[in-house]
Amino acid sequence: MAQALLIVCDGLGDLPSKNGKTPLQAAKKPNIDRLAKKGATGLLYTISPGIIPGSDTSHLALFGYEPEKFYPGRGPLEALGIGIELRDGDIAFRSNFATVDKDMNIIDRRAGRIEEGADELAKLIDGKEIDTVKIILKHSTQHRCALILRGDGLSANITDVDPHGAGKVLKSEPIDSTPEARKTSKVLNDFTKLSYDILSKAEINTRREREGKLPANIILSRGAGAYRRIQPFKERHGFSAACIAGGALYKGVAKYVGMDVIEVKGAIGTFNTDLSAKAKAVLEAFKTHEFVFLHIKGTDNAGHDGDFDGKVAMIEKIDAMIGDLTPKLPEGTYIILTGDHSTPISLKRHSSDPTPILIYGKNVRVDDVEKFDEISCARGSLGHLRGIELMPIIKDKMGHAHVYGS
Amino acid sequence: MAQALLIVCDGLGDLPSKNGKTPLQAAKKPNIDRLAKKGATGLLYTISPGIIPGSDTSHLALFGYEPEKFYPGRGPLEALGIGIELRDGDIAFRSNFATVDKDMNIIDRRAGRIEEGADELAKLIDGKEIDTVKIILKHSTQHRCALILRGDGLSANITDVDPHGAGKVLKSEPIDSTPEARKTSKVLNDFTKLSYDILSKAEINTRREREGKLPANIILSRGAGAYRRIQPFKERHGFSAACIAGGALYKGVAKYVGMDVIEVKGAIGTFNTDLSAKAKAVLEAFKTHEFVFLHIKGTDNAGHDGDFDGKVAMIEKIDAMIGDLTPKLPEGTYIILTGDHSTPISLKRHSSDPTPILIYGKNVRVDDVEKFDEISCARGSLGHLRGIELMPIIKDKMGHAHVYGS
Repeated sequence: MAQALLIVCDGLGDLPSKNGKTPLQAAKKPNIDRLAKKGATGLLYTISPGIIPGSDTSHLALFGYEPEKFYPGRGPLEALGIGIELRDGDIAFRSNFATVDKDMNIIDRRAGRIEEGADELAKLIDGKEIDTVKIILKHSTQHRCALILRGDGLSANITDVDPHGAGKVLKSEPIDSTPEARKTSKVLNDFTKLSYDILSKAEINTRREREGKLPANIILSRGAGAYRRIQPFKERHGFSAACIAGGALYKGVAKYVGMDVIEVKGAIGTFNTDLSAKAKAVLEAFKTHEFVFLHIKGTDNAGHDGDFDGKVAMIEKIDAMIGDLTPKLPEGTYIILTGDHSTPISLKRHSSDPTPILIYGKNVRVDDVEKFDEISCARGSLGHLRGIELMPIIKDKMGHAHVYGS
Repeated sequence: MAQALLIVCDGLGDLPSKNGKTPLQAAKKPNIDRLAKKGATGLLYTISPGIIPGSDTSHLALFGYEPEKFYPGRGPLEALGIGIELRDGDIAFRSNFATVDKDMNIIDRRAGRIEEGADELAKLIDGKEIDTVKIILKHSTQHRCALILRGDGLSANITDVDPHGAGKVLKSEPIDSTPEARKTSKVLNDFTKLSYDILSKAEINTRREREGKLPANIILSRGAGAYRRIQPFKERHGFSAACIAGGALYKGVAKYVGMDVIEVKGAIGTFNTDLSAKAKAVLEAFKTHEFVFLHIKGTDNAGHDGDFDGKVAMIEKIDAMIGDLTPKLPEGTYIILTGDHSTPISLKRHSSDPTPILIYGKNVRVDDVEKFDEISCARGSLGHLRGIELMPIIKDKMGHAHVYGS
């Protein structure tokens, strides 16, 4: 059986902007264009036309898991991504260290983007219990952490305590009338109060105030999601998969679907990520896996910043990495290159515009497309695909598909 | 109202192979290319991207019947194709004459590809009863036959007795715990034993053994499918349809959806099929039908054999036939030319790659595609269609569609 490398450049797709060109059209990318020329191309609607993909739902679709069936909310995915082992029924949240006054008015939703001391502050609360519900709180980066409520009879159908902006800390409410939702919102409210009681007395915060910094004196949570174990990738598709990514979310989605997440030093999810370290990790991963997912974030960051030249530069960095990596891959490895959505420079946000895709390898339908960009690939032999259709195509190419009917 | 001719060249789609060309690109086919130039073109995913179509499921989709709703399994379709009239609730199997020893070890799954005498052997068993279940057994070609179990309370949810390879004859088991499945597996096991008891004593087999041939001393069955009458083609689409095909399966699918199956002498489902006899039958069929389905098998055979030149030659034969037929068709007849799936020379199996399609006739959106092949048609005005979407398009062109809404 063949092997396959799926390279997802986050937010890769774009719209014509500088000189009427998209960043992919403007970039010098001889290696990628060579793959396009020798491969099959098309455009990919990660979800479906007009739907703006999130990074979480889009990756689920790319991995062959229908988001409408399998999306657990952002909370569990972020928690998995920072290495928390989840159990069925866990309710997970994205949480922030924040600064409030005595009346629960929010002074800073990010506690001055605290980084130092945040680990220790989280440990003051991690492991507590409220109404027999175990609290798991882990710091991730800066002001961010993951909160897990673990216990029987919990529900994710509750509102946030984080107002997502200025104002007062909210009271979480059940969204339905089940005892589970009522119980969980009460536990979350109690937890929020408890976090204030503990953190406002913490020595680290006293020190921060002395130094003129904002105290990280409360935890604000949002995006409740219930975790359930799903059919693992290998069982679903028939081959093992490894993930090489910087950002926690991508590692979380990969872990959720049962990929082996390989930690790479220097993979930091920005323009300055160490692409050659990631490429090395890809080669290493292929020794024990048939399928490798490589995630590169920098293109999306440039899109959000509206930084045309930055996106072009990132694409050229990726091109150099691909040129270096391709000849070192195990013979017969399929290369699939695409994005998870468009993040157009002109919009500075995700958009529903499809992303170009190429499949390079044996027995693909080589078309007459010679450039890898949004316009050229529109007439490619793959046509306009949906994200959920990608894995079946890869499986057929790899020799893992079965005839439907006879 | 207009008429329409749907020509399905089995396994037509391919991948670049000899000199980087597909057989469609390599073939000289001026008549087909003329239709492409004057018509609308596109690519057809018969089921959906990445899904490898079987010949049965793909034809159901082409005829406008969702396979996931209407596919009854291969057994009933083959039985219909060899002319057996099925009733609701019949359980049909694909069966083989085979050779076993006394301990039910399989010596040859095809009884030396018996042909002569197979009709008579089937008749020795046809019409028997087991537990009030009527046995219908009809010989088709060589070692192949169709088995029907007819009676109340039967189920297709049982396992095969045919091990699909070397080994012992299997015992059929119910797949679910219903009395119907238990009963049917018991009847199939009893039938298999009965076939051995009858066939091993048959004079034809004694003679075969005397002549050094393998005796056809058992019937091995597989692929149980329950038949139910479905909404007929004319009721579903609004016009009558005729089928002109050589292979039993294609006639079976056509019969299943309620087409009139026209037997054509010389239509034998291979390279040497009599295409001019089939073309004559098409013209005849249009006297009494608005829609004619013409199936041509040779392209698929060449694909399975990995015979590039053979596939090219078959395409050129089809082109000549089309050149001859087109001017004789009733004025205003739409011609739809496509395949049911790809059978690439390089793979010698079905693949999920889409097949080119053209629609020629009045009021179609003529595009700038001038060649009928996998690469040129990728930019055609029809785009990338699914099999199930074809009949609605044909219906609209023919004037049989209705506005959705007002």
